[in-house]
Amino acid sequence: MREVKFWQIKPEIRILGVDDGPFEPRSKGEVPLVGVVFRGGRWLDGVLKTRIKQDGTDVTKRLIDMVNRSRHRGQLRVLMVDGVTFAGFNVLDAKEVFRKTGLPIIVISRELPDMMNIREAIKHLPRWRDRWRIIKRLGKIYPVRTKSRGVPIYMQLVGIKRADAESVVKLSSTRSLVPEPLRVAHLIATAIVRGESYGKA
Amino acid sequence: MREVKFWQIKPEIRILGVDDGPFEPRSKGEVPLVGVVFRGGRWLDGVLKTRIKQDGTDVTKRLIDMVNRSRHRGQLRVLMVDGVTFAGFNVLDAKEVFRKTGLPIIVISRELPDMMNIREAIKHLPRWRDRWRIIKRLGKIYPVRTKSRGVPIYMQLVGIKRADAESVVKLSSTRSLVPEPLRVAHLIATAIVRGESYGKA
Repeated sequence: MREVKFWQIKPEIRILGVDDGPFEPRSKGEVPLVGVVFRGGRWLDGVLKTRIKQDGTDVTKRLIDMVNRSRHRGQLRVLMVDGVTFAGFNVLDAKEVFRKTGLPIIVISRELPDMMNIREAIKHLPRWRDRWRIIKRLGKIYPVRTKSRGVPIYMQLVGIKRADAESVVKLSSTRSLVPEPLRVAHLIATAIVRGESYGKA
Repeated sequence: MREVKFWQIKPEIRILGVDDGPFEPRSKGEVPLVGVVFRGGRWLDGVLKTRIKQDGTDVTKRLIDMVNRSRHRGQLRVLMVDGVTFAGFNVLDAKEVFRKTGLPIIVISRELPDMMNIREAIKHLPRWRDRWRIIKRLGKIYPVRTKSRGVPIYMQLVGIKRADAESVVKLSSTRSLVPEPLRVAHLIATAIVRGESYGKA
């Protein structure tokens, strides 16, 4: 799979950050998936929302549709997601998203993903081998230090070179250890479900 | 009604900006009311959400509850709303909100409110005289120029001096003619209803 060539990473590069809301008893098996369009780490340009099924297999299609239908589509340059498991173990096929949207993807994790734990957790789900294959083929995990003091966070990449991804992650982590598009997507998705957001950072 | 004394308006003063979502046929007579906690005009610190009735009379109570129950309550210094009519003509009693929360309120309008038009529009609603009284007693409308070039926007004030309110409005209008807390509350509330936000600015 080829990589997108970035001639230059502009400080106001349009990033779509995506996160899901938490479960609640009243969620009825669905949670919101929220995308926020950020200019670099500074300005929120737009908000997108769709819904995905708890432990379902629809997140890949829902995200592709949300991106391709958006009026921001033409401006977007890169996608960031908080891990690849949404709404429980609804697994995002990042390579498929790249194929269908043309947008490279940076998968962010605050901790090194514990692959064996994930494997155990998904083994009771329908089509678990498909889910596992998607998670495994994501490939190499790179640390990236967003603040000169502080622990690194981790990224996995589809369609973007490590150096380019590092620039995007660093320039967009203006406020906390994680990129603003993800921090804000998390706040909004949580508020939609709970009525108030609870930050992780 | 006395005013809150601000010793100093700090650049990162915590502002709660509040806006409502649009109606949709599937809204079933309710729309989301979204509050965003901003540090000045820069950082989004939190998101709050509740629901209000179309053309109802519950916005005052819902907003007071949302503010007083929030874990951000202690940090908040000022409230900003986009007009006082939400979800149609669900009229916010800003003075009551000030009394019950202790937070001064800046009511922002992009255009000079056309009072006679509003009066005509609400006359078919239950308790229209109460609604009209709340709107009328908001009092004086002040223009404020948030950008050196560009038209002024307008503000009405409860519990805050004109000079203090002007400082808050100007310092928080970092990105467009309107304060960031209102611009972002609008984007989020619209996305919750429509799946995608449409800016006004």
